[in-house]
Amino acid sequence: MHRSHTAGELNASHIGQTVTLSGWVANRRDHGGLIFIDLRDRYGITQTVYDPQENEGAWKVADTFRSEYVVKLTGTVRARPEGQTNDKLSTGEIEVIITHAEVLSKSEVPPFEISEHTGANEDIRLKYRYLDLRRKSVFDKIAFRAEMNKYTRDWFTTNGFLEVQTPIFTVSSPEGARDYLIPSRLHHGKFYALPQAPQQYKQLLMVGGVDKYFQIAPCFRDEDPRADRHSCEFYQIDCEMSFVEQEDVFAVAEPFAKSLIKDITDKKIVNMNADGTFRRLTHKEAVDTYGSDKPDIRFDMHFEDFTAEFADSGFSLFANTVKDGGIVKAMKLEGKTLSRSEIDSLTEVAKANGAGGLAYIIYEADGPKSPILKFFTGNELASLEAKLAPQVGDMIFFGAGDYKTTCKVLGQVRLACRDRFSLVDSTELAFCWVTDFPMYEQKDDGSYDFEHNPFSMPHGGATAFDGNPDPLSIYGCQYDLACNGYEILSGSIRNHNIEALVKAFNIVGKGEEEVKEKFGAMYSAFQYGVPPHGGFAFGFDRLLMILRDETNIREIYAFPKSGKAEDAMMNAPAYVDEEQLRELHIKVRETNK
Amino acid sequence: MHRSHTAGELNASHIGQTVTLSGWVANRRDHGGLIFIDLRDRYGITQTVYDPQENEGAWKVADTFRSEYVVKLTGTVRARPEGQTNDKLSTGEIEVIITHAEVLSKSEVPPFEISEHTGANEDIRLKYRYLDLRRKSVFDKIAFRAEMNKYTRDWFTTNGFLEVQTPIFTVSSPEGARDYLIPSRLHHGKFYALPQAPQQYKQLLMVGGVDKYFQIAPCFRDEDPRADRHSCEFYQIDCEMSFVEQEDVFAVAEPFAKSLIKDITDKKIVNMNADGTFRRLTHKEAVDTYGSDKPDIRFDMHFEDFTAEFADSGFSLFANTVKDGGIVKAMKLEGKTLSRSEIDSLTEVAKANGAGGLAYIIYEADGPKSPILKFFTGNELASLEAKLAPQVGDMIFFGAGDYKTTCKVLGQVRLACRDRFSLVDSTELAFCWVTDFPMYEQKDDGSYDFEHNPFSMPHGGATAFDGNPDPLSIYGCQYDLACNGYEILSGSIRNHNIEALVKAFNIVGKGEEEVKEKFGAMYSAFQYGVPPHGGFAFGFDRLLMILRDETNIREIYAFPKSGKAEDAMMNAPAYVDEEQLRELHIKVRETNK
Repeated sequence: MHRSHTAGELNASHIGQTVTLSGWVANRRDHGGLIFIDLRDRYGITQTVYDPQENEGAWKVADTFRSEYVVKLTGTVRARPEGQTNDKLSTGEIEVIITHAEVLSKSEVPPFEISEHTGANEDIRLKYRYLDLRRKSVFDKIAFRAEMNKYTRDWFTTNGFLEVQTPIFTVSSPEGARDYLIPSRLHHGKFYALPQAPQQYKQLLMVGGVDKYFQIAPCFRDEDPRADRHSCEFYQIDCEMSFVEQEDVFAVAEPFAKSLIKDITDKKIVNMNADGTFRRLTHKEAVDTYGSDKPDIRFDMHFEDFTAEFADSGFSLFANTVKDGGIVKAMKLEGKTLSRSEIDSLTEVAKANGAGGLAYIIYEADGPKSPILKFFTGNELASLEAKLAPQVGDMIFFGAGDYKTTCKVLGQVRLACRDRFSLVDSTELAFCWVTDFPMYEQKDDGSYDFEHNPFSMPHGGATAFDGNPDPLSIYGCQYDLACNGYEILSGSIRNHNIEALVKAFNIVGKGEEEVKEKFGAMYSAFQYGVPPHGGFAFGFDRLLMILRDETNIREIYAFPKSGKAEDAMMNAPAYVDEEQLRELHIKVRETNK
Repeated sequence: MHRSHTAGELNASHIGQTVTLSGWVANRRDHGGLIFIDLRDRYGITQTVYDPQENEGAWKVADTFRSEYVVKLTGTVRARPEGQTNDKLSTGEIEVIITHAEVLSKSEVPPFEISEHTGANEDIRLKYRYLDLRRKSVFDKIAFRAEMNKYTRDWFTTNGFLEVQTPIFTVSSPEGARDYLIPSRLHHGKFYALPQAPQQYKQLLMVGGVDKYFQIAPCFRDEDPRADRHSCEFYQIDCEMSFVEQEDVFAVAEPFAKSLIKDITDKKIVNMNADGTFRRLTHKEAVDTYGSDKPDIRFDMHFEDFTAEFADSGFSLFANTVKDGGIVKAMKLEGKTLSRSEIDSLTEVAKANGAGGLAYIIYEADGPKSPILKFFTGNELASLEAKLAPQVGDMIFFGAGDYKTTCKVLGQVRLACRDRFSLVDSTELAFCWVTDFPMYEQKDDGSYDFEHNPFSMPHGGATAFDGNPDPLSIYGCQYDLACNGYEILSGSIRNHNIEALVKAFNIVGKGEEEVKEKFGAMYSAFQYGVPPHGGFAFGFDRLLMILRDETNIREIYAFPKSGKAEDAMMNAPAYVDEEQLRELHIKVRETNK
């Protein structure tokens, strides 16, 4: 072993001991003929001293040290001189006077400064990720990831769940996002696919009697990268249970999230129900009230509906909207008097989301002010004030138009207010269950598609599909958990009745034969005794990102892919040898062919 | 929740309670007008009773139950009648008299009997793996896998190792086995590769200062499947440490293996050194003594060399072999008198491995017997007896020929004896470090290739490559751990000196530019301060297979691939839509083009 202690370990109790340390040269100072070198490793920093009077050989070697050299040092621990101790370091009471110094590995000048205050951009940090990892803040995120992995596995194991590793090589699935494919060498023309999630496997585990399953599962979706979605691979805390109903699932996910946050973070959960459970909204309530199926409920700014009140308004924009079947909603921003440019910027947000503009009222000390106020009747204003109770210093924003656009516009303006006016406390987390998702959405051509998970049980059970119901009237036992405006969990009670499952697929135009062909394992398994079951998946990376106050998901991977799904360090993806492609029975197409 | 208790939970303390159970119908008996149904779930079996006198409704429903139906039952726990308790069941003291019965899911007749004594072949078990998982012995292996996963992670975490998840999408590597490739949609004509092991990443983590890393890493090699190698994916316990030498690595791997075995298995480790450490052999000693680089040292049957003794033998086969530069070795099989057919069968093993035949001596009560004895001098026989000390009832086998073939032949005959004459106790494990692997092997054309890991430090350190040494004389700080004849760990101290690493590649004909191009990240990283480091990887699946007495590695996966790398349950690999291939910029080649 090239060391007797780490660089974070020595303190006053070691004074007088001879020690050997190895690590990186972090910093050098010359003072009064002495050299001082800060030696750094994963565990800390130790000050080492080289005195030409005491040991000229060691001093001469130290004089050759440059930043990021890896060195091996032997010397004696001594107390730092009076007044020179450093409370911020675990080793701040001592220093090591070096008698033998040796370079283990030299370093070129690094492409960026290895410090917390590095100005390096993301591209260079990713290319030299091994250097970036030497920065404490970067390492700490990776260490936290390990801690969260362990905490998660321990929690689920303690609570009776069995960890099962499901296959990484599976088959392309017709639902969901694009699959990543792997050409088979042994089976000409055939392909494996990487799993988008272990959805079918975990349901098959329930058919197999595993009863309570979990896994921190690698998942693979060939989607375009974005800030909260890592390309190539990501991880989910995947969980499934037999003989359960929705409440039983909530009674697992909710305590897990609370324990995790309490035990390994400094975050505080706010805005829970009086009994300490997470708030719940149906999908419709969430959209109605916050314009989102993943509402950030750390702050209020809920919507109130004024469709009826403005049906005959003198403000023709509102009246015409209602006449055309649209809605009018409004929300209140408390205690902020916005500048013209701030209002313009919010108006841009509204326009970007499909609105013509952004109507508002400012409550000033001498009364409400707004360009549109002159069109309002006293009753209209009174109804606004009755529902929204604005005070001096508040503002009211309006949305008017078709239901979907209006909810979205106000929802986005609401989030823009949150970000621009710091309406939330970053140490707080607010969770919200969103339940009762519609099973189907209607496409432009009038046909239907699954809105969510095709394998979910509808409300009303297996008989919900009987008698040709309007597909849009069918809601699923499907639920998401939102946290601070992110979707961090998704799940459902599954449809374990094969006839009902076929009916669910019939609505999206798939016949029994197609279900049998595309989901052969599920179709077959469901013939042999299926327990009622349900579960969920937490987005592990996204949850971790929120818990670490990151807005860029790449920060919480040891070796992330770039925003273009590339690994600049490893140079992936890359061209490969023709011979490799030949063995796999494939060739690359010419451009656009 | 569709149950108040599991089927493994009820005992005398619950007598009188009303309970609801859900599970599978495992067994039905009709007796004296009553129906008895054994209800099964993951946790156990509970006997339920239906009495038409007490509850005709429940009895009628139970009468419709068939094997593997999933049912929900409510009733009252009562003591079993005197003499009818079952000690083998945790629930054997009680039964539940049912008042309400309900079918949750029907079952067709399963394609094989869900019992420990099923005669189903592997093909059908894999196709209906979800049914196979209902068998306790199959489930238990998956549960053990979860336990071993958790034990491993806990052990390494407790010992200061940081779990890091390295990328699953990386770049094709020119060394080692074939890569699995993934065509990139965003980068036309480029491919990701799945990692054969996280070798480069873990070394980059050391450059990044992570210091002590571990991971139960998924690995991917496109090799042809065999009994102890799962196709597509497998897992390794991957570990790397900085500032260590070989002894430091052994001091991690060895206690881990011992703790694991002591804490979660009933196995006993035998044939250790007197101080309780694992035995060690150099690669040369292992091949010399056992004809294998992964010797099974649970039993002796070591080889002794008789090349000198038989140089001038009257047995011309031996004498000529020695004259041609070959060797003569012999080993002793204790206390077995083999039949003619048993000797013939061992001779076949010898021939299959390149020998012309298998010479032997049988020590009978009236002296040694052998067709070749007449050619031996008294001195030759005496030298044999001096080194091998045969007793009456023992046999001696000879190998003669070139070194490599002779060692292999005797090694295989030795293992054949082990298997045919039950020379080992299946409850025992014997570990053996094999060290000092040759760095290079010479190919038929006279050029050299890496025998093992190209990134290993040679014995003698970075200067071992200086002055044009004979490549075959260079040994690496490389080690394997063998257990019961399997290689279960491989590792090395790495070469952290970039100039020496380039020299190592020069010997196999790769110049600096090629190293830079093929191992760009390593080449670049090694310019910026590299700690001396080393590590290992345990074959997780193979170790698990040994610990569970399985000889087929597929048995220890929840959803294994077949021997043809297929998943009959999911029908993977499969043909995919032309549209998918088009998006990925590839097409399938015509056969043989």
